[in-house]
Amino acid sequence: MTEKLILHEFTMSGNCYKVRLTGALAGKPIERREYDIMKGETRTPDFIANVNANGRIPVLQVGDRFIPESNAACYYLGENSQLIPTDPFDHADMLRWMFWEQYSHEPNVATLRFWMRWLGPDKLSDLQRLQMPTKRTAGNAALKLMDEHLHSRDWFVGSALSLADICLFAYTHVAGDAEFDLGRYPNVTSWIERIKGYPRYIPLEA
Amino acid sequence: MTEKLILHEFTMSGNCYKVRLTGALAGKPIERREYDIMKGETRTPDFIANVNANGRIPVLQVGDRFIPESNAACYYLGENSQLIPTDPFDHADMLRWMFWEQYSHEPNVATLRFWMRWLGPDKLSDLQRLQMPTKRTAGNAALKLMDEHLHSRDWFVGSALSLADICLFAYTHVAGDAEFDLGRYPNVTSWIERIKGYPRYIPLEA
Repeated sequence: MTEKLILHEFTMSGNCYKVRLTGALAGKPIERREYDIMKGETRTPDFIANVNANGRIPVLQVGDRFIPESNAACYYLGENSQLIPTDPFDHADMLRWMFWEQYSHEPNVATLRFWMRWLGPDKLSDLQRLQMPTKRTAGNAALKLMDEHLHSRDWFVGSALSLADICLFAYTHVAGDAEFDLGRYPNVTSWIERIKGYPRYIPLEA
Repeated sequence: MTEKLILHEFTMSGNCYKVRLTGALAGKPIERREYDIMKGETRTPDFIANVNANGRIPVLQVGDRFIPESNAACYYLGENSQLIPTDPFDHADMLRWMFWEQYSHEPNVATLRFWMRWLGPDKLSDLQRLQMPTKRTAGNAALKLMDEHLHSRDWFVGSALSLADICLFAYTHVAGDAEFDLGRYPNVTSWIERIKGYPRYIPLEA
């Protein structure tokens, strides 16, 4: 793979951080291009036409082609590395956690983080405010399910760190930003420390 | 792969249908076990403990192990078939559409279908009712994005049918159940007919 890699991103987004963390752990250098999502910079006609018709970051650019969706971008970077198990069951199990992250974790934990820390409580619409308790409950259910899964294991899939851990780590380790109490989930907090101690780990703010 | 495959499912769920359709197209026979989700049969202590801690179907059982998350189950069944492109970019592009389906399509098109056709308009909570216009707008945006993508191509990724098409087809072809007007999306309707004419295609109700 010799094509240049460029990440179109908003640094503080956990979805963008996943892609950088995967690149770091897989030893693949990535150029970075920052967009201010609070100013609508990913909704411009140019971005829609040339980067992502869906108007969202992250997008991983590979030469002159584009991969939207954070977990798909992570997969591309993880190809042929130890971050992706080769056993077919473990591989599907890894994807299972990645799909679960996007369906049952991110729309709750990440969305509350965005609403509370970026939009700000005063700027929420009535509908957003009404959805908060449901997202709080679902977010805690997601963290509890992770905690139970990690009760007897170090990593989400098999016996090694995989993309499943990276994708789940991104918003879990900053869940406190959305006032989730990670102290209630001791297996999750141990797993967070395990990832932070992993060779070539980079923090979100880096 | 000689382990027995059992699909834990609710037949009319598009997420379950995806898995059956993938099995049919990949030539992999699957036993079926039906749960009545309207009666909470996937939320029993037995189901939570032994099938899926997340309390949801579909779950693909492989011998005595379980794969929740529809798109992960499809991937397992599609392994080593022509449904999964081998080129790394096309492969990531396929996953991109599968993640997009779960994040930007299913929570809108499928959720409205479930609320309108299974729960029924009279049984919706106030919060569900308030979310309907947002889901309607987002569902139409998803269908429009698909329609534009299909403007100059027959399949979502590369030049052949892949898991991306199967996963997107499941809820798109029954979007009328949620009163989406597919007539507004002519490239989508042609693509639906293309899939229905594909060798070994099986309908949702089969």
